[in-house]
Amino acid sequence: MDKSTKRAKFEGVWNVIHDELLAHLKACGMPTEAQEWYSENLHYNVPGGKLNRGMSVVDTVEILKGRPLTDEEYLQVAVLGWGVELLQAFFLVTDDLMDSSITRRGQPCWYRVPRIGLVAVNDAFMLEGAIYHLLKCHFKKEPYYVDLLELFHEISYQTEIGQLIDLITAPEDVIDLSNFSLQKHSMIVVYKTAFYSFYLPVALAMLFCCVPTLYTPPNSTSPVAPYEVAKSILIPLGEYFQIQDDFLDFAGVPAQIGKVGTDIIDNKCSWCINTALSLATQDQRKILDENYGEQGYLGEAERRVKAVFEEIGLREIYAEYEKNAYKRLTGMIDQIDEGTSVGLKKDVFKSFLDKIHHRQK
Amino acid sequence: MDKSTKRAKFEGVWNVIHDELLAHLKACGMPTEAQEWYSENLHYNVPGGKLNRGMSVVDTVEILKGRPLTDEEYLQVAVLGWGVELLQAFFLVTDDLMDSSITRRGQPCWYRVPRIGLVAVNDAFMLEGAIYHLLKCHFKKEPYYVDLLELFHEISYQTEIGQLIDLITAPEDVIDLSNFSLQKHSMIVVYKTAFYSFYLPVALAMLFCCVPTLYTPPNSTSPVAPYEVAKSILIPLGEYFQIQDDFLDFAGVPAQIGKVGTDIIDNKCSWCINTALSLATQDQRKILDENYGEQGYLGEAERRVKAVFEEIGLREIYAEYEKNAYKRLTGMIDQIDEGTSVGLKKDVFKSFLDKIHHRQK
Repeated sequence: MDKSTKRAKFEGVWNVIHDELLAHLKACGMPTEAQEWYSENLHYNVPGGKLNRGMSVVDTVEILKGRPLTDEEYLQVAVLGWGVELLQAFFLVTDDLMDSSITRRGQPCWYRVPRIGLVAVNDAFMLEGAIYHLLKCHFKKEPYYVDLLELFHEISYQTEIGQLIDLITAPEDVIDLSNFSLQKHSMIVVYKTAFYSFYLPVALAMLFCCVPTLYTPPNSTSPVAPYEVAKSILIPLGEYFQIQDDFLDFAGVPAQIGKVGTDIIDNKCSWCINTALSLATQDQRKILDENYGEQGYLGEAERRVKAVFEEIGLREIYAEYEKNAYKRLTGMIDQIDEGTSVGLKKDVFKSFLDKIHHRQK
Repeated sequence: MDKSTKRAKFEGVWNVIHDELLAHLKACGMPTEAQEWYSENLHYNVPGGKLNRGMSVVDTVEILKGRPLTDEEYLQVAVLGWGVELLQAFFLVTDDLMDSSITRRGQPCWYRVPRIGLVAVNDAFMLEGAIYHLLKCHFKKEPYYVDLLELFHEISYQTEIGQLIDLITAPEDVIDLSNFSLQKHSMIVVYKTAFYSFYLPVALAMLFCCVPTLYTPPNSTSPVAPYEVAKSILIPLGEYFQIQDDFLDFAGVPAQIGKVGTDIIDNKCSWCINTALSLATQDQRKILDENYGEQGYLGEAERRVKAVFEEIGLREIYAEYEKNAYKRLTGMIDQIDEGTSVGLKKDVFKSFLDKIHHRQK
């Protein structure tokens, strides 16, 4: 199945989900205006992205099972995938509000749509609420139902913790690079992005396939913890992904990455600035302090920061980082023993790594 | 045990909970600033209210068990109580933001505290996230664990739905009384307030006491659904409570109710205005349309609205409503068959009704 057919199939389930959520509101006797409002909230905020996270649940289950899914299986797995997308929408709607962002996915951020404003906060809650309503409708009878709930809870809480550190470290109005460090960057990336974007989809797929938490292979005395193995690969993989994202924001060609980088102007706690800070001379540090997070006349401040990045050799440092990250991740994946790690397969992780490695956008 | 000793005991558990939540953040390796921020968020927003909702979980379990609780039981039940308070804090922090409120519980609303601003949204998420972290720590091994999770999910979603209708019906900037109706008022009150304030604490207590969902008494063929029985009483009881609240906002003596009513100036979809609208002559309606939601010169607009309320006889209508509500609720409570309705006791509902009936604040 080619990529666009796959996407269309996955989007087909979105309509089912949307209609289920609306039917529930109707059954509660909610006024028509409330139904219409929720419908718009769902359509505007959930399905318009790349859907990589949601579709990776489906991909992972197919790899683990080693066969195409039945229609019934597909529906259930796609509900989990849309659960990840709903969780992301819940976070993005409020992140945009907290960051005063202007656009998202080529349209105005939800809170900036006329009439919406701060109601966006409650709209975000309802996107989160939808997840648990759907899980109850589609998974209540499954033995791993409670594990699904706990997984969504834990990942949500971790993401919120990551968002808190990010908000405290790089507040909108106070520019102070002494708050930044590569260690904090790593913490923010792991908690705010890697857990929900990389570990969550795979862990959901593993739960669906009834992969146990702990398993002692025959002829062995040492138990394997498959979810921990998955986490130990997917979290650094997510970190690699985000560092790449940060690097492309600085070095990517707008025509290729599909956007103009704004991390420097926006005072973002990015891998680039943190790496530069860790290597800057006193003179370079002074330039960074004076220009990071500033627009400057005709973008002059941004150009000065970029010049320091180039002087420091950020391109080479990144190339070196990427080479090592790829090697380290490949090594970890190769160590998975498919014979014993009940249900884990190298291809799950390889497919993620391949999608990320050397991407240009 | 007198009321203040009871409260002090319940507050004692708050310290345990706070320390558990902080210890978890520390164990995740979060920076000190993040730990301090969360600590302040928790202390500022959770324990400063009347704690009626949280403590009613303890009261209800004591009534159902018919004996004082052991220390171990008390801790668990108080965690459920604080779960209700955390849920309320999650909603109040964001309600205040969405309503542009100024103060809450005698201090500035959290989002108005310097440095906080829109970070309050993520702080609210973390109050919600705390609930599920605590439930996992304290209840994972209980047979009713999944029911606790589902109950919190369902009630949260219902409260969010109620908040949506409220926000759409009475937006801050558009005053249009034709949006209002007693039916919508009832819907808002039931969904936004009654479920989490009245049904949730009792249902949590029932789950703790292992009251089954469905039960067929010996010598009977008709099954009893105790949670449905509880809901059928507590939802109208919550509606009565809110209507009383709305009435006291208009008619209460500030020295007695401890605040000055602002529902009329704030364009609130209150029982008073909805009742007045349902009975107003054309001339009265015109006065309401022109003055509701307006400050006016020296509060003149508010005085005109109040005059219409008096003309319509709102005090008598309320007295009549209260008499009937009390009678209807007492009748429902009397019908509970304590011999057969596994675990349900009349005193659970009587104690709620007594606290509400004829209250002056």
